[in-house]
Amino acid sequence: MSEEGAVVVLSGGQDSTTCLFWAKRKFPGEIEAITFDYGQRHRIELESAARVASIANVPHKILPINTFNTLGGNALTGEIEVSSELDSESGLPNTFVPGRNLIFLTFAAAYAYQRKISNLVTGVAQTDYSGYPDCREKTIQALEKAINLGMESEVNIHTPLMFKSKKETVELARDLGALKAMGYTHTCYHGQQPPCGACPACILRAKGFEEAGIPDPLTARFEG
Amino acid sequence: MSEEGAVVVLSGGQDSTTCLFWAKRKFPGEIEAITFDYGQRHRIELESAARVASIANVPHKILPINTFNTLGGNALTGEIEVSSELDSESGLPNTFVPGRNLIFLTFAAAYAYQRKISNLVTGVAQTDYSGYPDCREKTIQALEKAINLGMESEVNIHTPLMFKSKKETVELARDLGALKAMGYTHTCYHGQQPPCGACPACILRAKGFEEAGIPDPLTARFEG
Repeated sequence: MSEEGAVVVLSGGQDSTTCLFWAKRKFPGEIEAITFDYGQRHRIELESAARVASIANVPHKILPINTFNTLGGNALTGEIEVSSELDSESGLPNTFVPGRNLIFLTFAAAYAYQRKISNLVTGVAQTDYSGYPDCREKTIQALEKAINLGMESEVNIHTPLMFKSKKETVELARDLGALKAMGYTHTCYHGQQPPCGACPACILRAKGFEEAGIPDPLTARFEG
Repeated sequence: MSEEGAVVVLSGGQDSTTCLFWAKRKFPGEIEAITFDYGQRHRIELESAARVASIANVPHKILPINTFNTLGGNALTGEIEVSSELDSESGLPNTFVPGRNLIFLTFAAAYAYQRKISNLVTGVAQTDYSGYPDCREKTIQALEKAINLGMESEVNIHTPLMFKSKKETVELARDLGALKAMGYTHTCYHGQQPPCGACPACILRAKGFEEAGIPDPLTARFEG
C-alpha cells in the first residue's frame, strides 16, 4: 500500500473542494479525485466536481451508483421536495439519503484498494453537520474499522474538516489557494446557478464566507 | 422500527437460501428477500435467487449495483478467470470483490431503514470462509456499528451460519425444510448447470452434503 497518495471523495461542493487542496498539500504522492453519480437530482454537481478537479490539476473519475434510486424516499434522489423542516418521525432532514456516506467511503476504499493507495479524504464535518448522522466522527471511525477488517487493508480515512466551522473551512480554503476553484463549486439544494440564496445549504454557505470576511467567489462570479 | 420482520440478503446460493428459511422460522413478521445484481458474470445466480424466494413464498426484489464493474480487478465481475490459487500479493482469492459484503449489507440496511425493519440476515460464515475477510464476525460487528451510527438506526445483523461448517449448514437446511429450494440454488464458480463439480465452490459444497450424509438436491435434479 502506498502511504503517499490519496483518493479524495469530491462532491463538487465547498467542503470536498477544500479537502482536495488539503490533500494536495498533505500527501507527496499522487492525488486522485472520485465523484459518485448516484442519481442526484442536480447534475450540476458532477460538472462542478469535474471543473474543480481540472482547476486543481488532479485526475478525476466519476463512478456510477444506480442503487439509491431504487431505494426511494428522500429529496436528493427522489421526487420529494427539499424541506427545511426535520422529519417528524426520524428527526432527520428529508435530504438524508440513508447510508450515503457509508457507501461512498466503502466504494472509495475499494477503488483505493485496487490502486494500492491507503489514504482516503472526505469533507464530512460534525460541527455543522446539519443533522446527518453519517458525518459524525464516531461513524467514520467505525466505518474505517469495518473497511479495514473487511478488506484486510490499512486505509486511513482523513476528515480534515470534522471539527471546523464553515468560517474556518473558508479560511482554510483561502490558505490553501482553493478560492479560485471555490468559484465553481456547487452548494444550492435547488440546483440553481447562480445559487438561490434561500435554501438551508445556501444560507449555511453564505454565513461561513461572511464570518470569514471573504467574498464568496461563486456569487462574485455571477455579480461580475 | 419493527423487530418482527427481516430482510434477507439472498444470493441464490446454499448459505443464503438456508438463511431465508431460518428467518422465516425465527421472525414472526414479514420476511423479504433482496438480491444484488452487481454485474456478476453468471446471471444464473439471479434466476436461482428468484426461484428460491418463490419456493419459500417470500417477496423478492433485485437491486442493481453498477459500481463494482467500474472498479475492476476481480474474477467475479471482470474478465479474469477464476483461479484456485491465492493472489501472491494480497493472499486473497482472485474472486474477492473488495468491499462486496460491506456494500451489500449497507444497502440492505438502507432498504430495511426505508421499510422500518430492524433485522438483516446474511449467510456469511467464518468457518469455511474461503479467504474472504468480509465474512468474518469481527467485520460484521464493526459494520453493524457503523451502520447504526450512520443511520441512527438499530439494525441487527444476524449471521446464523457464522460458525457452522458446511456439513452443519446442510443439516440445518434439512431441519428447516429448505432442501427442495436447495435443488435450485447456484454455487458453481463457472456458472454451469449442472455444476462443474471441479471448482473450489463445487468441491466445498459437495463435501458438506457428503459429510451430512444427504444427497445434494441440485445434482440429484440433473441425475433424475
